Amino acid sequence: MIRPGVEDVARRLLERRGVDLNDLAGLVYELQSPYLPTLTHEECLHHLKLVLRKREVQYAVITGITLDEMAEEGTLKEPLGSIVRENSRLFAVDAVLALCIVNVYGSIGLSNFGYLCEDPPEPLRRLDRSGRVNTFLNDLAAAIVAATCARIAHNSRRPEPSEGGAGTSS
Amino acid sequence: MIRPGVEDVARRLLERRGVDLNDLAGLVYELQSPYLPTLTHEECLHHLKLVLRKREVQYAVITGITLDEMAEEGTLKEPLGSIVRENSRLFAVDAVLALCIVNVYGSIGLSNFGYLCEDPPEPLRRLDRSGRVNTFLNDLAAAIVAATCARIAHNSRRPEPSEGGAGTSS
Amino acid sequence: MIRPGVEDVARRLLERRGVDLNDLAGLVYELQSPYLPTLTHEECLHHLKLVLRKREVQYAVITGITLDEMAEEGTLKEPLGSIVRENSRLFAVDAVLALCIVNVYGSIGLSNFGYLCEDPPEPLRRLDRSGRVNTFLNDLAAAIVAATCARIAHNSRRPEPSEGGAGTSS
Amino acid sequence: MIRPGVEDVARRLLERRGVDLNDLAGLVYELQSPYLPTLTHEECLHHLKLVLRKREVQYAVITGITLDEMAEEGTLKEPLGSIVRENSRLFAVDAVLALCIVNVYGSIGLSNFGYLCEDPPEPLRRLDRSGRVNTFLNDLAAAIVAATCARIAHNSRRPEPSEGGAGTSS
Repeated sequence: MIRPGVEDVARRLLERRGVDLNDLAGLVYELQSPYLPTLTHEECLHHLKLVLRKREVQYAVITGITLDEMAEEGTLKEPLGSIVRENSRLFAVDAVLALCIVNVYGSIGLSNFGYLCEDPPEPLRRLDRSGRVNTFLNDLAAAIVAATCARIAHNSRRPEPSEGGAGTSS
Repeated sequence: MIRPGVEDVARRLLERRGVDLNDLAGLVYELQSPYLPTLTHEECLHHLKLVLRKREVQYAVITGITLDEMAEEGTLKEPLGSIVRENSRLFAVDAVLALCIVNVYGSIGLSNFGYLCEDPPEPLRRLDRSGRVNTFLNDLAAAIVAATCARIAHNSRRPEPSEGGAGTSS
Repeated sequence: MIRPGVEDVARRLLERRGVDLNDLAGLVYELQSPYLPTLTHEECLHHLKLVLRKREVQYAVITGITLDEMAEEGTLKEPLGSIVRENSRLFAVDAVLALCIVNVYGSIGLSNFGYLCEDPPEPLRRLDRSGRVNTFLNDLAAAIVAATCARIAHNSRRPEPSEGGAGTSS
Repeated sequence: MIRPGVEDVARRLLERRGVDLNDLAGLVYELQSPYLPTLTHEECLHHLKLVLRKREVQYAVITGITLDEMAEEGTLKEPLGSIVRENSRLFAVDAVLALCIVNVYGSIGLSNFGYLCEDPPEPLRRLDRSGRVNTFLNDLAAAIVAATCARIAHNSRRPEPSEGGAGTSS
């Protein structure tokens, strides 16, 4: 019983919290172009949009951003509101929720995800400096980038003779 | 910056939603006693309480039950409120959140967790029949049982000569 | 630098160890047909074959079955050979390797996987009774079934108006 | 049916492949001392040794290093030998095996693990330059460091009044 519009909601929430899909695609390009010299920014954006088409990704985005927004507004019940605002090192729920996204293209996204969480490049770092509650959003954005990298890696392998149109079944 | 009382909050929330720690310990006993004939119900309850002492477990419990309660009351923002109430098969956030708990004692809790989710025995099944929104609670309760089983398995191995008091460091 | 034939190797290894893809597809059908009344056995087999087209799945299958076979033949170095033959409850490597497969279609396969490991239905149970070392194979076969169920669940959701041909991009 | 000596085997294998526990403890110190100004190198080494006492960690170490060594010697069956030697980007088995270790102290080790895999500091980088097959060892060493960081983070939280000697139950 899937309501229409879940994808739209997820994309609007990302936009409302200051995430620019073009910036994320640029980060994907930086991470993947050393391996794939013919990769273009447009292809990165294309793969990123396909990641956002996955229902599990949309649900994770909606859950995490709603928690951030309600914690920011003070409408999330206590003590969860304070826990989300403080984002202590032992609060692993944000990273684990983001794993829903990373795992959508298998396990090869894990190391990129961890890297982006620990040493976030500029487009992600800006979310940290925004003064808003982005406890979940930071990890979600890193996870979307990591999953897009994994999708590209899966699709870029040379097809085997026996595979035919395997490229479409990723 | 951990506030006092997180453990108390987690335990009170479980109680308020109808989870009886004694029942869960009984389920642990059923699952583990075939492997460990000298295991007692009291030991199971003891290990279960130690699982609930872990901060990651407490955070997962508080996050999940707060989402259930606010979805039930209608105070969770839309469309997240409806998504939690509907609990579609593609909503994996509840299972992934519960993994925070399962993983606290390593990977051996995974198969018990999956089993308890797919074919829940009576004390868990009762939560399903309660008429309340227990989307997260179902998975959290199964995860607490699975993590307790894993804790017991880790502690029950025959100590090696070189290990001395290793039993305390699980 | 992917060598041709990895997919063929994985499928031949499964066959050599007594796994019949038709039996696994039958199990997928049993698990999914209650949700999807129009599902056919042929569709299950089709999705299962697409799961086996994923490189991560093939690598996990080749790694696990090679470990089983070398442990059985006595050519795996000690003590790993004995560890694989004994398959103690604390040896989680088999389950974790199988997660490579389960995760290829996101997190919704987790509960089916755990269920199939703890209470294996007939086609999986037969592997246990074979008298061979199937420490890894048991979990790999359960994971292939669980991933196929997840693939079907992802593809069966009603497409949203905005999605167009999203069904092909899972 | 645990044989004595599994812990010794794991530690000897790490040593034989050039991993110095003191170096890993130094890396833990670098990563954790910004959060915990009173932390000492000795404490880091102490926690690291306790991580290596966990059976799941020992099994992962033995499995991974045995695969590396047999691939290096040419005694691992083909095509697995070549797959391990090549270590393609789509071979996720090494990272997933290392997750057995990372998860032993919950999910908070994940981001450190990914970071250490993607941008390895000196003691880990040296393993890459050794000219040996360290496909698994790289990830195992990073995972041991990440799990030790997680262990320290769990133990360093201010005990709550209600917790008594909770520090011993980590």
